[in-house]
Amino acid sequence: MVTTAANINLIKILEDKAARLRIDCIRATTAAGSGHPTSCASVAEIVSVLFFSVMRYDPKQPRNPANDVFVLSKGHAAPVLYSAWSEAGLFPRDHLLTLRQANSDLEGHPTPRLPYVDVATGSLGQGLSVGNGIALNARLEKSDQRVYVLMGDGESAEGSVWEAAQVASYYGIDNLCAILDVNRFGQSGPTMLQHQMEVFRRRWEAFGWRAMIVNGHDVSALLKAFAEAEDTRGKPTIILAETLKGKGMDGYEDKDGWHGKALPKEEAKRVVRILESVLTGESDHWTPNLPQRRNPSPRPVPVGTTPRSPYIAGEKEVATRKAFGDALQALAKINPRVVALDGDVKNSTYSEEFLAIAPERFFEAYIAEQNMLGMSMGLAARGKIPFASTFACFHSRAYDFIRMAAISRLNVKLGGTHVGVSIGEDGPSQMGLEDIAMFAAEPNFTVLYPSDATSAWAATMLAAELIGPTYIRLGRPNNPVIYGPEEKFEIGRAKVIRQGKNDRVLVVAAGITLFEALKAYDELKASGIEIRVMDLFSIQPIDSETLATSARAAGNLVITVEDHYAHGGLGDAVQSALSTQSIPVYKLAITEIPHSGKPGELIEKFGISSKAIGDKVRELVK
Amino acid sequence: MVTTAANINLIKILEDKAARLRIDCIRATTAAGSGHPTSCASVAEIVSVLFFSVMRYDPKQPRNPANDVFVLSKGHAAPVLYSAWSEAGLFPRDHLLTLRQANSDLEGHPTPRLPYVDVATGSLGQGLSVGNGIALNARLEKSDQRVYVLMGDGESAEGSVWEAAQVASYYGIDNLCAILDVNRFGQSGPTMLQHQMEVFRRRWEAFGWRAMIVNGHDVSALLKAFAEAEDTRGKPTIILAETLKGKGMDGYEDKDGWHGKALPKEEAKRVVRILESVLTGESDHWTPNLPQRRNPSPRPVPVGTTPRSPYIAGEKEVATRKAFGDALQALAKINPRVVALDGDVKNSTYSEEFLAIAPERFFEAYIAEQNMLGMSMGLAARGKIPFASTFACFHSRAYDFIRMAAISRLNVKLGGTHVGVSIGEDGPSQMGLEDIAMFAAEPNFTVLYPSDATSAWAATMLAAELIGPTYIRLGRPNNPVIYGPEEKFEIGRAKVIRQGKNDRVLVVAAGITLFEALKAYDELKASGIEIRVMDLFSIQPIDSETLATSARAAGNLVITVEDHYAHGGLGDAVQSALSTQSIPVYKLAITEIPHSGKPGELIEKFGISSKAIGDKVRELVK
Repeated sequence: MVTTAANINLIKILEDKAARLRIDCIRATTAAGSGHPTSCASVAEIVSVLFFSVMRYDPKQPRNPANDVFVLSKGHAAPVLYSAWSEAGLFPRDHLLTLRQANSDLEGHPTPRLPYVDVATGSLGQGLSVGNGIALNARLEKSDQRVYVLMGDGESAEGSVWEAAQVASYYGIDNLCAILDVNRFGQSGPTMLQHQMEVFRRRWEAFGWRAMIVNGHDVSALLKAFAEAEDTRGKPTIILAETLKGKGMDGYEDKDGWHGKALPKEEAKRVVRILESVLTGESDHWTPNLPQRRNPSPRPVPVGTTPRSPYIAGEKEVATRKAFGDALQALAKINPRVVALDGDVKNSTYSEEFLAIAPERFFEAYIAEQNMLGMSMGLAARGKIPFASTFACFHSRAYDFIRMAAISRLNVKLGGTHVGVSIGEDGPSQMGLEDIAMFAAEPNFTVLYPSDATSAWAATMLAAELIGPTYIRLGRPNNPVIYGPEEKFEIGRAKVIRQGKNDRVLVVAAGITLFEALKAYDELKASGIEIRVMDLFSIQPIDSETLATSARAAGNLVITVEDHYAHGGLGDAVQSALSTQSIPVYKLAITEIPHSGKPGELIEKFGISSKAIGDKVRELVK
Repeated sequence: MVTTAANINLIKILEDKAARLRIDCIRATTAAGSGHPTSCASVAEIVSVLFFSVMRYDPKQPRNPANDVFVLSKGHAAPVLYSAWSEAGLFPRDHLLTLRQANSDLEGHPTPRLPYVDVATGSLGQGLSVGNGIALNARLEKSDQRVYVLMGDGESAEGSVWEAAQVASYYGIDNLCAILDVNRFGQSGPTMLQHQMEVFRRRWEAFGWRAMIVNGHDVSALLKAFAEAEDTRGKPTIILAETLKGKGMDGYEDKDGWHGKALPKEEAKRVVRILESVLTGESDHWTPNLPQRRNPSPRPVPVGTTPRSPYIAGEKEVATRKAFGDALQALAKINPRVVALDGDVKNSTYSEEFLAIAPERFFEAYIAEQNMLGMSMGLAARGKIPFASTFACFHSRAYDFIRMAAISRLNVKLGGTHVGVSIGEDGPSQMGLEDIAMFAAEPNFTVLYPSDATSAWAATMLAAELIGPTYIRLGRPNNPVIYGPEEKFEIGRAKVIRQGKNDRVLVVAAGITLFEALKAYDELKASGIEIRVMDLFSIQPIDSETLATSARAAGNLVITVEDHYAHGGLGDAVQSALSTQSIPVYKLAITEIPHSGKPGELIEKFGISSKAIGDKVRELVK
C-alpha cells in the first residue's frame, strides 16, 4: 500500500475507531457485570479495518442482500460486533449499555434477532461452515459479495473448522476470507499452539488456503492483507492475526485468567480513561463504503401447484427414502431456491436424484456432517431452502449445529434415512435410534415421520413450503404404498387408517411399525379383537386432538410402537400429548442396544413386531 | 530392510495371508448377501503385515492387556478383522460365514461383544481418538504397548480426525501409529483428494505427525514403514497407504459403484478361484509374535469407604458443578483408575480441582469435544474411569461419539455443567437444554441430576462406582445445601422432601427447579394448600415405584418442572414412568428458544419459577 495522505488519514480513522470499540466493549460488559472485554480487545483493529474500510455495506440497511457479510464465529466477542454497528450509525451508542439484559436484543452471544446477524454464534467452530454456505450462495447468485469470518485461535481446535477448511478449498471459494485471532489464550489457559504462527500457516496452507501472517494490531498491515485476499482467485484466504488478549486494556494485556470477566467499575473507568486519552476524533471523518452492485434479490418462491406423488397404492413397494429422493428431484424442477447437500451417501438417501438434474445446486459435503449442516445454515440464512441428507444416525454428528440452527430459527430441511433396527445387517452403528429425541427436543423443529412413499413425498413437499427448521425421518426398507396421490397430508395432523365401532385399543405408529400395526390389525380381527390404527405422521407438532378423540373411541387405551429408543421418541411425544387425559399409554420401543440381523428378525427380537403389538393388545383387553 | 532368506519367507507368508484374507472376506460377504468386500480388499496387505508380523499379541488371548492394540476405525471392513483373528487361530474359519447373522457376534460393523474389539466402530472418524486414549493409557501404565489405528481416506474428512491428530502430536503420543487406506473411493463416488498423496502428507505433517507414503499393497514397503514408525520418538506416525479399492478382486479393482456390495454367488466363486490360484501355502509357516513384556494389569479398584461430602446443610450456598469438582478431587486421591478430561472450561466445570492434585491423570482436551469423548472411550476400554466434563450443551458436539460409547457399553463418565436458562446472561448458545433428551435416549446410560452440593458429590461418587456409561447434569448457580453428609443417595431412587397428610399435588423437580418447588411449597402452604415435593435425582433409571406411590398419596396429580426443553426431558421420563397409571402429569419446561437475562428473570419468563408452579397447583386444585 502506497503511503499517501489519504492512507494516513484512513489509518488514523481506523485506529481511532478501534479505540472507540474497546471503550464501548469495556463499558458495556462492566455495565452488564459479565462478558468478554479482553476477547473484544484483541480484535478491535481487525473489526475496525473490516467495518470501516474493507467491507462494502449500507450501515442503515443491514439486511441489504448486496452488503458484504461478516460472521462473528467467536461469538463471545459479541460486544465488539454491536459496537461496530453502532459506530457505523445503525443505532445510538447508549443502547450498547443494555447488553445481556432480558429486554435487549444485544444478547450475551449474537443471535439473528438482530438484523445484522445471519446465524447465532457462541458455540465455537461453526462460523466458517456458515461462511462457506453464504459464499456459495453468492456464487449461485453471481454476486460479487464477499464473506468475512472472524474466528478465535482456541476455536480452531474444533474439527468442524477443518471440515469447513477442506471443503472451502475443494470448492475454491475465493469470495471467503477468514481471520484467525491468535491471542494465545483460551478460557482456562493458553491454547495448544499459542503464538506458533508458522504452525498455523502450515496447517491452513496444507488445507489449500492462502494464509498470511500479520500483526493483528497493525491497521496498515491488515489493510494490505485484506486487499491481497480480495485479489486471490481460486482459493479461500485466511489472515492469521497475531494479537494480544486484552490489547490496549492497561494491566490486562496478554494475561491469563481474564477470559470472560468484566472489569470492576473503578477499573473500567481507569482503563477507559487511558484509552480516551489517545482518541483523536478522526473517526468522525469516516464515510461508509456502500455496496456498488446490487445482489439479486432472493429468488421468489414459485407459485403453482405442488406436483402430485407418482405412487399407486397397492402396487410396487417403495422405500420412504426413495420417495424423498424422487420428491427432491421434483422440487429441483419447480423451485430454484431449493438446494441439496449430502454426506457421501447420496446413493442411499437418493439425493442423487437431485444431483442428476440440478448439479449446480447440489453440494457433495463428503463425510463431514458438521460442515454440511453449517453450510446449510449459511445457505438458509440467505434465502435458499437447503435439504441436507445423510443416515439419521450421522446427523447426531452435527447435533451442536442443529441446536444452533434451532436457536437461529433457520429454514434448514434435514432428511435422515436408515432409521431403526429395520435397517438390518449393518448393525447398531448405522441405526438411527435417537434421532426423534434429538430433533424434537429443539422446540421449533418440525419433525415428520412418513410411513409410505406417498406420505414421504408429501412430507418433503410440506418441508419445502414450511418456513422453519424441519426434520424428515426416513426408512431403508421397501414398504407397500398405502396412500394414493390424492391423499392430503398436513403438518400436525395424524391419520386414523383402521377403525370400527368396537375398537378396544388405539395403536399409534409411524414408518415401518405402521405396517406391523396393520398386520396386527388383521391378525387380531381374525380372532375377534378390533383395534384402531393411527399413522401419526407429524411428531412435532403433534395432533393431540385426534389422539385424544381416537383413544377415547378405542377403549381409552393406547399402544405406541416405534423403531426408535424408548426415551424421547414417538411414544414419549404421544404420552406427553395425552398426559393430562388419564388415558393409559403403553410404549413398545427399542429398549436395549441392538444387533445385526435380518430386518424381520430384529423387529421381532426387539419387540416392535405385529406379534409384539398383538400380544400387548391381548394382554390389555383380556 | 535387508533382503535375507528370512525376510523373503516372511514376505511370502504375508502375501499368502493377504490372499487368504481377501478370499475369506468375499466368501463371508457373499454368504451374508451384504457387506463391503472391496473395502476389505484394499487393506488386505496392511492387515496381513500388522497381524502377522508387526503386532505383538497372543492370538489365543485377545484380552491379554500386554497385546498390541488394533483399532479398525473404518469399521465397514469388519470382515477383514474377523478373518485376521480367525487366521491367527482364535476361532475356526467356518465361523466367518455367520457374518451379519442375528445369532452371531460377527456383526456388520465390529462391536465389543468380541473380545478383540475395544470400541464399536462403523461411525467413521472415531478410531483415532480412541487410539489416543488407549495409547495414553499405555503411557500411564508405563507399558511398551503400541496402538495401530486403520482409517479410510473418506473418513479423514471428518473433523474429529483432525481433532485427534492435533492432540496426538500435542501430547507427543509416539506409541500410536495410524494407517490411512487411500483407496480413493467413498461410498457414493471418488473422495475429495483421491490419490493426491502429497496433499495428505502435507496435512498430516502440518498437524505434527511423521507421515510416510507407501504402496499399500507392497508388503516389503509396509514392513519397512512400520519399523520406522516404531523407531519414531516424540510424535505419532501415519502411514499413508496408496491402495486400490477391490485390489485383487478380478474385475472390481479401482472401480466406482462397488462400495458396500457383496458379489453375486457365481462372481464370488470366479474371483475366489483366481485368488486361490496364487495361494502358496506359506501362511502355514507363520508363528505368532507374542508380547515380550507384561502390561501391568489394570489397577485394582480401591476398597474402603467413599469419602463423605464436606457440605453442611443450611450453611454457605454451593453450585452443583463446584461439588462435582470437589468430588473429582477426592476421587483423584482414593482411586488411581480415575482420570479426568476437560474441554478448556476446567475453571467453570471445576475439573481443575482434579488437575491440581493429579496432573499426570488430567488431560486438557481443548475445544475439541469429539476427541475428548473418543479419548475417554479408549481410556475406559482399557480399565480407566474417565470423567470428561464440559458445558452440557457442548456435549452435543460429541453426540455421535456418545452414541457409539453406548453401543460399546463403555464405562465413561460425563459431567455437563451450565444447564438451562438459569445460566442467565450468556444466552441460549451456552444453555444445555437438550442434554437429558440426548443422554437418556441411549438405553444403557445412567442419567443423574443432583440438586444440591451434597447430592452432586454423591452422584459423582456413585458414577465412579457404577460400571457403565453415566451422565451427571450440573448447574451453574449457587444453591442452598439441603442434605447433610449422612444422607444416602442411590441410583434409581428419588427422595420425597416435603410431604404431609393433605398433599393435593406431587411436584417433581431436580436441580434449580427443586428450589423453586420448595419456594412454591412455602407459598402454597401459607395459603392453605399442601403439596408433596420430590427430588427426582435419578432420571434414568427412574424410581417408578416412589413416583406412583407419592402421586397416589398426593391427590393423584403430578406436576413436573425442569430447566430443560419440553421434549425428552425430566417431565417425559416421569410421564413415561407413570403412563399406564392414569395419573395426570402436567409438565412445566422450556417451550421456546430462550434469551439472555438474569437467571431469576429467565426462570420466571420461561415458566419454571415458584410462581409458575404455584399458579399451576392452584389451577389444578381449585
